[in-house]
Amino acid sequence: MQFAFTPEEILEILGEGQTEGNTEEKVVGIASLDEALPGDLSFLGNRKYRKEVSLTKASVVLLPDDFVGSPRENQIFLRISSPSHALARICEYIEEKTWHGPAVGIHDSAVVDPSATIDPSASIGPLCVVEADTNIGPGTVLEAQVFIGHATQLGRDCWLKPHVTVASHCLIGDRVRLHSGVVVGSDGFGYSTIEGKHLKEPQIGRVVIENDVEIGANCCLDRARFSETRIGEGTKIDNLVQIGHNVVTGRHCLIVSQAGISGSTTLGDHVIVGGQVGMVGHIKIGSGSRIGAQAGVNCDIEPGSYVTDTPAYSYIQARKIEVLKRRLPDLFKRVANLEELVDAQ
Amino acid sequence: MQFAFTPEEILEILGEGQTEGNTEEKVVGIASLDEALPGDLSFLGNRKYRKEVSLTKASVVLLPDDFVGSPRENQIFLRISSPSHALARICEYIEEKTWHGPAVGIHDSAVVDPSATIDPSASIGPLCVVEADTNIGPGTVLEAQVFIGHATQLGRDCWLKPHVTVASHCLIGDRVRLHSGVVVGSDGFGYSTIEGKHLKEPQIGRVVIENDVEIGANCCLDRARFSETRIGEGTKIDNLVQIGHNVVTGRHCLIVSQAGISGSTTLGDHVIVGGQVGMVGHIKIGSGSRIGAQAGVNCDIEPGSYVTDTPAYSYIQARKIEVLKRRLPDLFKRVANLEELVDAQ
Amino acid sequence: MQFAFTPEEILEILGEGQTEGNTEEKVVGIASLDEALPGDLSFLGNRKYRKEVSLTKASVVLLPDDFVGSPRENQIFLRISSPSHALARICEYIEEKTWHGPAVGIHDSAVVDPSATIDPSASIGPLCVVEADTNIGPGTVLEAQVFIGHATQLGRDCWLKPHVTVASHCLIGDRVRLHSGVVVGSDGFGYSTIEGKHLKEPQIGRVVIENDVEIGANCCLDRARFSETRIGEGTKIDNLVQIGHNVVTGRHCLIVSQAGISGSTTLGDHVIVGGQVGMVGHIKIGSGSRIGAQAGVNCDIEPGSYVTDTPAYSYIQARKIEVLKRRLPDLFKRVANLEELVDAQ
Repeated sequence: MQFAFTPEEILEILGEGQTEGNTEEKVVGIASLDEALPGDLSFLGNRKYRKEVSLTKASVVLLPDDFVGSPRENQIFLRISSPSHALARICEYIEEKTWHGPAVGIHDSAVVDPSATIDPSASIGPLCVVEADTNIGPGTVLEAQVFIGHATQLGRDCWLKPHVTVASHCLIGDRVRLHSGVVVGSDGFGYSTIEGKHLKEPQIGRVVIENDVEIGANCCLDRARFSETRIGEGTKIDNLVQIGHNVVTGRHCLIVSQAGISGSTTLGDHVIVGGQVGMVGHIKIGSGSRIGAQAGVNCDIEPGSYVTDTPAYSYIQARKIEVLKRRLPDLFKRVANLEELVDAQ
Repeated sequence: MQFAFTPEEILEILGEGQTEGNTEEKVVGIASLDEALPGDLSFLGNRKYRKEVSLTKASVVLLPDDFVGSPRENQIFLRISSPSHALARICEYIEEKTWHGPAVGIHDSAVVDPSATIDPSASIGPLCVVEADTNIGPGTVLEAQVFIGHATQLGRDCWLKPHVTVASHCLIGDRVRLHSGVVVGSDGFGYSTIEGKHLKEPQIGRVVIENDVEIGANCCLDRARFSETRIGEGTKIDNLVQIGHNVVTGRHCLIVSQAGISGSTTLGDHVIVGGQVGMVGHIKIGSGSRIGAQAGVNCDIEPGSYVTDTPAYSYIQARKIEVLKRRLPDLFKRVANLEELVDAQ
Repeated sequence: MQFAFTPEEILEILGEGQTEGNTEEKVVGIASLDEALPGDLSFLGNRKYRKEVSLTKASVVLLPDDFVGSPRENQIFLRISSPSHALARICEYIEEKTWHGPAVGIHDSAVVDPSATIDPSASIGPLCVVEADTNIGPGTVLEAQVFIGHATQLGRDCWLKPHVTVASHCLIGDRVRLHSGVVVGSDGFGYSTIEGKHLKEPQIGRVVIENDVEIGANCCLDRARFSETRIGEGTKIDNLVQIGHNVVTGRHCLIVSQAGISGSTTLGDHVIVGGQVGMVGHIKIGSGSRIGAQAGVNCDIEPGSYVTDTPAYSYIQARKIEVLKRRLPDLFKRVANLEELVDAQ
């Protein structure tokens, strides 16, 4: 994505900040302190990197208000309340400036059922399919090749990337982002086994995604057996995550890549689920809990807990036991030695 | 999915059952005993929940023939041989009533090669691609944006959801369900490494999926290097599962979400593979085996075994050792104590 | 894929080799030594299977130059410098002969922006979408339903299977193969948490894929927060792998199915990552390292290491400790026994 800003334009985007020094460079890139070159903007997001500020070649450096130090020649320090937020605002600005989504309206090549209600400010991109009795809210964008099934509703200002599938009868709130390959509303994995054969339990519930949720590429969210699977407001899900039928997550959870949550398990608010975590079905994860990467959770977790390992238990205890586990060769020797001594006595 | 049934209609759907009590409510939802509200149908599928029956607010409750107890006011008990199967039949009925797949025939926007043989009772939905020399059986439904590659054959009454890919030369049986994002017939991961570079071993085999198989969203089934990858009759696969090249599964297996089976490994019949299980290649998993979630299997497994952990071994032994592992801090103390005592003697 | 070769044709394809014996069969299949039937070609790729040669029913057997033994009746031994490479050449030949990709040029049903630069020798298959300011090199094939986003560039002789998504501003080299469902350029998972809400950090970098990379079905490669995510030349990635934002892999790495690499982690050259491995972000994996399947890596790894387990450490040490872990029941008994003896003294 190509751009070129003067330091003055950056101040204008941010609407705040104090500059020190000056530069003849335009900002044409963004990079971390140690990788930045002349022409780059950089930032001190975490104080542990503060020693890198004096070494950076960046032309413009975003720094906290109280940062002590001075810019090099041909370099600007820009002091601001939160460098991370300032960077986010600049990135948003660039994202908007370089945005090339489909035009407002329905692309000629899209297949849209006449009974679909599509707000005039929505964009339905090329080769999308929108089935009957659907509702697409204002400002919502379906990029190319998206599928929206029968009777599904999307709120306002959603953004669905190419190749997203939202199956029938689902309910999507406002400002929801679904990345490419996401499948919302696949059947839950439910069978009754009779004489060794697995009889399908029809899955006739729906998926509800509340406002401000973002879901990463190639995630799968199964519809409920009946009633609903629900993703709480503001929850963010990374790529390749599996959400089983009738799972309910609270608000503002973070679920990292390749985690899997089995059927009917519920998460409280502000739960953090590490990458590749697995959870059995029908358990409750308390609000504010944190599950370490690759853990396997097979029982309820108290609010505010931090657990890891398979099966999962206290993170601190698990770390201690991990250390002792690695000292087993020594322990076996010590016990053998004791046996010899005792035998000799 | 909206519906409203009188209790009489439910008896009609089931074709059997004895009612006790009566209600003025129509059934407009289905819910578990503890979550049901007036207007819901509920059921006792597992006897361990029988105490919830007297507390449920459901208007209609499906119960086993021999259930002892009586309905509350404005509530019906419906006794029947198997409440779970009865519920499945009701759900199937609702699924059929609310079904909105593509019409029979080929949608105008689909791209179908003239050499494809498509049964007149099949449905090819919008924006599907069906390549040359393919064969699509009676009653088979391709929802939107499906891809069927050259010379692939599908049997009767299959159901392929939006964005399914079945690559060339594959063979799909009858009543097979493939959920959105499934990829059948991607290349196996096979390379010969020569002087540090990985030379591709062409993958020219096929994938065979036998009758009554169901495969979850975004699963990948690689074609064989040569000969075939095969999924046995009645096997059910959850979302995001990886099936390597030349894998052969037996009949009526269950493979839970995010499991991965490496190349040339074979499963017997009725094997249950837990979520996030990994298996190395070229091993044999005996019929009736069960692999605990997140296990890593690196050797042959005897028929009827139950294994877990990485590397996987006896489930019962693994559970015992897990308990002892957590008592390591105590064991280290006891050994230190012994050393002191022995030293003092 | 159907074919029938005389032994003479096979010699012609290979351009080298010495035959012994003769057969009246045409070669109509390829199979391993123990599974081959008359009409099959087989091969000795690994000397540990050499005892199977005298038992195989294959009509033609590829063998190393120095193999000692003679064919059965109606069987040909074909001695050659490398049977594995010879087989690869034959498979490639079959793959080419049975290839049925889209024709050169742009299919009528594809939606291609007029500003796209598409080499006349490239193939844009049915129902593809190619956005503005893109560049598609000579000989590159987009099968059906592929998406190429704004300003993305593909080199020569790439092969993108159905339902691939390459989002905007990405750079793909030459001879890159992307399997169905691959998503290149999804947003990285980056948020700043302020008062319990997760504020999106816009992801405005790109993904660069160097020459001769192959990426398996349904993999996800996130674009960088800024700057780039990069896959090094000749690296091969299996299905369902997650590559986080700003990850950089070296050249000729192998990454097995369902592995996940978190943001900003870098891999050296020739790294082998096992199936279902997880890596935290911001670590360095040295060149030539090997990470065992299902390992969880949470720190830098020295070049040439072989690690496994979660958290990962030396493979050899981990295997030893695994053995001792399984002897814990015995150790607890021995300590109890010692306590009794010491107590009695």
